[in-house]
Amino acid sequence: MIAKVVLERKREGHALGSAEIREFVEGFTRGDIPDYQMSAFAMAVCCRGMTTRETADLTDAMMRSGECLSWTAPTADKHSTGGVGDKLSLVIQPVVAACGVVVPSLVGRGLGLTGGTADKMETIPGYNCSQPLARFQEIAASVGVSVAVQTDEICPADKKLYALRDVTGTVASIPLITASILSKKLAEGAHTLVFDVKCGRGAFMKTPEDARALADSLVAGARAAGRLSCALVTDMNAPLGFAVGNANEVAEALAMLGAPGFDVDVARLSDTVGLSLELAARMVSLEKGMPLGDARAMCSEKLADGSALAKFKAMVSAHGGDLDRFAGMLQTPTFKFRIQAMRSGRVSGIDAEKVARVALALGAGRAMAGDRIDPLAGVTLAVRVGDKVTVGAPLATLETTSEPEALERLAADLLKAFAISSGHCEPGGLVLSEVG
Amino acid sequence: MIAKVVLERKREGHALGSAEIREFVEGFTRGDIPDYQMSAFAMAVCCRGMTTRETADLTDAMMRSGECLSWTAPTADKHSTGGVGDKLSLVIQPVVAACGVVVPSLVGRGLGLTGGTADKMETIPGYNCSQPLARFQEIAASVGVSVAVQTDEICPADKKLYALRDVTGTVASIPLITASILSKKLAEGAHTLVFDVKCGRGAFMKTPEDARALADSLVAGARAAGRLSCALVTDMNAPLGFAVGNANEVAEALAMLGAPGFDVDVARLSDTVGLSLELAARMVSLEKGMPLGDARAMCSEKLADGSALAKFKAMVSAHGGDLDRFAGMLQTPTFKFRIQAMRSGRVSGIDAEKVARVALALGAGRAMAGDRIDPLAGVTLAVRVGDKVTVGAPLATLETTSEPEALERLAADLLKAFAISSGHCEPGGLVLSEVG
Repeated sequence: MIAKVVLERKREGHALGSAEIREFVEGFTRGDIPDYQMSAFAMAVCCRGMTTRETADLTDAMMRSGECLSWTAPTADKHSTGGVGDKLSLVIQPVVAACGVVVPSLVGRGLGLTGGTADKMETIPGYNCSQPLARFQEIAASVGVSVAVQTDEICPADKKLYALRDVTGTVASIPLITASILSKKLAEGAHTLVFDVKCGRGAFMKTPEDARALADSLVAGARAAGRLSCALVTDMNAPLGFAVGNANEVAEALAMLGAPGFDVDVARLSDTVGLSLELAARMVSLEKGMPLGDARAMCSEKLADGSALAKFKAMVSAHGGDLDRFAGMLQTPTFKFRIQAMRSGRVSGIDAEKVARVALALGAGRAMAGDRIDPLAGVTLAVRVGDKVTVGAPLATLETTSEPEALERLAADLLKAFAISSGHCEPGGLVLSEVG
Repeated sequence: MIAKVVLERKREGHALGSAEIREFVEGFTRGDIPDYQMSAFAMAVCCRGMTTRETADLTDAMMRSGECLSWTAPTADKHSTGGVGDKLSLVIQPVVAACGVVVPSLVGRGLGLTGGTADKMETIPGYNCSQPLARFQEIAASVGVSVAVQTDEICPADKKLYALRDVTGTVASIPLITASILSKKLAEGAHTLVFDVKCGRGAFMKTPEDARALADSLVAGARAAGRLSCALVTDMNAPLGFAVGNANEVAEALAMLGAPGFDVDVARLSDTVGLSLELAARMVSLEKGMPLGDARAMCSEKLADGSALAKFKAMVSAHGGDLDRFAGMLQTPTFKFRIQAMRSGRVSGIDAEKVARVALALGAGRAMAGDRIDPLAGVTLAVRVGDKVTVGAPLATLETTSEPEALERLAADLLKAFAISSGHCEPGGLVLSEVG
């Protein structure tokens, strides 16, 4: 393999051989292939694309750059491409675990507009996402579910490549995105992988076509690696649920799991709970080889009877977290600012991207890797799409522990996220299409 | 200008703004834009192309990365994209100088299959191509012609970019090739630029379409920079003339200029002399604003009456060279190996690339930058396309001062360069098309 020749061939639009791809990634991981060759490779892939087979080879090579776990018990995981207010994992994972399928979930830290599950879990005092792989495996096997952050042993090639793509304008490429997501999920070892590909204003994929293409690519890649897989393409134009932040999202997830004492109107979250159950049911159905309808019924039951909540609590404890202290933390005094409707009508849209930008500015996310997150910062909506409002009705609350100088300006920005129209407005369903 | 955004825009196929291109190149020259961003840029340009305006902006930015010379006298230069046995500059430059047009020629060192004019000139004992810019300008102004190597003050951005393109599979791009060639020629300051775009087996451009596209791009770029310009696309399937090497090419050029004492049959070089005069006449015609026919007549006269040879000799002396010692050097004992025709017939083709590979292996060129050249190494053909040969007739001589272990194998390789057919064969004209 001569790096320059591989680059020339991809530049000309040829499909690369499996050995070429493997040796290129191995060379990059070892440091023999310098950044300037890898960035040219990434740009050539952005421009010329990759076949399904090439994408599978790239994924495989990246997966093999680090540790690969394996499991004997039934295992499944779900991956979301990142949404605003997307706390679905926190509901899905304990539901699936309660159905007898182990959920070994290695996740990344959040960056940019969409938060990370690890950051959310770590708002629970004591919860430690940074577990050695052996301990992660132990918790997952004994409790049935563990959420921990990917260690440096998992897909080092992906970490190195992603840092480079981030500064070379080579993020937007379905083969590269597929290989990045999938290599880490494959290394995790779960037998079934279900993808929630977000689509819309608050997602990386803006159009249903692009989202569908990514969903197809992820499922094809997972199957090429011998896993069971399916995907849902779901709407991400408005935030999921009411809470956008970290601690507030965990509280909302706990409420959905049936935990008492949280100020959340779960009855108005039927779409969010519904999507969680759809995704959970697919994980259970594929992994246990049971009809989807049966899996759906089992998941609903495990959510309703408190078994899922029990799994969540057991996972929190196993990671050192303390839910009583979490409940107390939610009482911490914070700076709050409430915005109100300027006109009467129906909420016809809540721009997820605008909401996310405000939450980020309040301290709920990281503009740069390494930024500290304010666990209590975020936005809590008072309304959802389709709700009727009158002038002066509360629309949302901005919250932060260290008062930002620009709280009023952020409130004005947040107000722009709400579209209120005089006509009737019915929210659409969340599932746009399915690959399965 | 945010480098990542520039890369994203080019990745998407957008035309970049003049300021974006200028700032990107400036940042790269200063070292603020790292190699991995520039290689991604080069790959994006390879895949997405550039408009004529973008190419002109890139050329301008690269030119301005270093010193730019200017001239008050009429000035013209010719650039060849590189051929095998291409010693045309050595004939053209003194002819044009003899017509009263200054030829300030800054050239690169040869690399790979096609030799460099600087290497050829430096086979003349004492000739020093490494002149400070001030001295180069002085010689050109007083003698009328100077051939010197580009100093580090000329287009440092091009030097840095070319090194990167060479290892990232991003050489083959008409906008990048145009900017590289043209930025250096523009920095040289000549008012008229004539291009000889080589096409065929012994050239970088293999097809007439690609060669024509490069010719169009070079002429458009030179005109965008306010210069007079035209180009000829010329055949490079067979070597130019008999000599492929360094000292043997200089001897052949001297013979074409009318110098006595060289063992060269100039009468059989009418195509090579003819193409030299066509290119010289275009330089003179454009720069002096005279009809091409008149310029052609003037160039022929200056070649025939010895004025061009006088210019060549004056240039050699001004650079410290000694033509008497050169003539003596040609008598140095060397290892020679003659190959002969294995069948009778007409020479229907001499593969320039194969000849060049053998010459390179003999020591006439550099496989890697920094390699030392053997001035006396090379191939001297005994026949040209269209010649009639009988079995056992000499086809060519391989020559080197340090006997390579594999001289016989190289001789066998060289033999494969010759196609001998039984039918009639008339060599075609060298000029394939013209832009101007």
